[in-house]
Amino acid sequence: MTESAVVTHTGNNTLKDGWFSEISPEMWPGQANSLEIQEKLYDAQSEFQHVQVFKTSTYGNLLVLDGCIQATERDEFAYQEMIAHLPLCAISREPKRVLIIGGGDGGALREVTRHQYVERVEMAEIDGMVPEVSKKFMPYMARGFEDERATVMICDGVKFVESCEEGTYDCVIVDSSDPIGPASVLFEERFFRSVFKALKPGGVVCTQGECLWLHGELIGDTLEMCKKVFVGGSVSYAYCTIPTYPSGQIGFVLASKPEVDGKTVTFERPSREAPKTKEGSTLKPLKYYNSAIHSAAFVLPEFARQIVEPHLVPGNDAAA
Amino acid sequence: MTESAVVTHTGNNTLKDGWFSEISPEMWPGQANSLEIQEKLYDAQSEFQHVQVFKTSTYGNLLVLDGCIQATERDEFAYQEMIAHLPLCAISREPKRVLIIGGGDGGALREVTRHQYVERVEMAEIDGMVPEVSKKFMPYMARGFEDERATVMICDGVKFVESCEEGTYDCVIVDSSDPIGPASVLFEERFFRSVFKALKPGGVVCTQGECLWLHGELIGDTLEMCKKVFVGGSVSYAYCTIPTYPSGQIGFVLASKPEVDGKTVTFERPSREAPKTKEGSTLKPLKYYNSAIHSAAFVLPEFARQIVEPHLVPGNDAAA
Repeated sequence: MTESAVVTHTGNNTLKDGWFSEISPEMWPGQANSLEIQEKLYDAQSEFQHVQVFKTSTYGNLLVLDGCIQATERDEFAYQEMIAHLPLCAISREPKRVLIIGGGDGGALREVTRHQYVERVEMAEIDGMVPEVSKKFMPYMARGFEDERATVMICDGVKFVESCEEGTYDCVIVDSSDPIGPASVLFEERFFRSVFKALKPGGVVCTQGECLWLHGELIGDTLEMCKKVFVGGSVSYAYCTIPTYPSGQIGFVLASKPEVDGKTVTFERPSREAPKTKEGSTLKPLKYYNSAIHSAAFVLPEFARQIVEPHLVPGNDAAA
Repeated sequence: MTESAVVTHTGNNTLKDGWFSEISPEMWPGQANSLEIQEKLYDAQSEFQHVQVFKTSTYGNLLVLDGCIQATERDEFAYQEMIAHLPLCAISREPKRVLIIGGGDGGALREVTRHQYVERVEMAEIDGMVPEVSKKFMPYMARGFEDERATVMICDGVKFVESCEEGTYDCVIVDSSDPIGPASVLFEERFFRSVFKALKPGGVVCTQGECLWLHGELIGDTLEMCKKVFVGGSVSYAYCTIPTYPSGQIGFVLASKPEVDGKTVTFERPSREAPKTKEGSTLKPLKYYNSAIHSAAFVLPEFARQIVEPHLVPGNDAAA
């Protein structure tokens, strides 16, 4: 029935025998997810990273950055929907202005554009190659780039946020890669202080929060840092399942800046319904997010609860 | 930082270059989870299957049956706790007598023994080699075999259940491998009819329910079959995350036989607290299960909700 097999890692990027394997001795030692490849569609070195696209046998097209799986057409919706709708449905008032840091594949942007009350969504992506590759090889993921409310800036997101006027955004989404290499600055206190400043009172941030099964210490540190930076605000942690990320899950760190009257967002309870697909829209209906999974995503297995709970700050906004 | 690499599948079981890879063109085509191996500890053909144990670099000892990952010491608790405590904490009255079909590694048995009101727990495992190997190489997983309330029978679980007296058990746990090969009978209607008969009124069954991301059709069929067999009862579906199972998750099919007065178990709401570790016990505290994750485990992402919900039968036991 099932064959178990030898895996030979030769440490380079050729696709001998047709499998792509994701190895990171720093981030997920001793384990590797592999996808069967039919064809290499793209392979180039950008100014910042190694960008590859493969056609897989069973996961559609696959985007790889510096050897790490960023997205497959089959399961990208899980991460993209959750990183966008958790903050946008939790925030107490309707969000008008949203900033995405990173997220050059366009998936989080596509999800933000589902919210009709969003008037303006800006993206600061450092690597111009990523949006171009995504538009060409993963067109449904890149659909958000066509939205007239979207502005894409190819620039350093850290510098962009630092230069923002105070109180500009209702929501900042940090859609980064792992905290080793170029994205490591997006896990530093200095960056979170800039984000805090760039948010309106009552505004929220949602950042890619790694995996509870792998990165407990990093998650604890990031939450503790948010607690320190988001003075008077709330801090929480949620997760989703997604087969092609290491260990099959990824989490989200959420924090809110307090309103002038001291109210803070209760992330665990959505303030509004899931966005409806607009009449005539070419977007498919939501496939992962719904209001029930919003709340359930904050409920953690016991080992993870013990890691995370000491670092949380509950919200105080008890509106129905 | 991260190296992407070639994976070469030679289709045999030697561990060249030190990685074990789990491939199944039938059950999870185009994807493979791999673990880095330090040593092969055991390798034998039993009467029923190929049994292997490896020492991994980062997941402790690994038990493999017919090329499929059954358990690692690092993450086995997730599956074992959930397959035992979901049914045992959901059932309305305190369960006294429990049957495990399969589960020869002993992990589900260990979890059942945490419940102090359980008076007797029997196991019907077809392959005597599995408990022996588990005791030797994964002693903590096999801890339940030492409990004086446990009886292990090396026999065909299907025949055993068929021959059971009607109304014998409060809970039946079907801890099977995948529904191809020897375990396929454990997914058939005839087997579920025997389980229904073997349960007391108000009794519950919990079976390994595969992965929502991979086996939607199989899950839908199994639930529909339970709906047909458990006449007047309730049917539900939950899941847990576990890194070393395909796609990082596994699910559970739960069904209840109605009480004489027509009451049925509401699986989504636990009827009692998580079992406490007994004074002086050598069991570690629970690492996955808690009362909040019990309820959250039934809340499904939208794509999965659409597959599962048409086949569910809600419970009517509204006791607090």
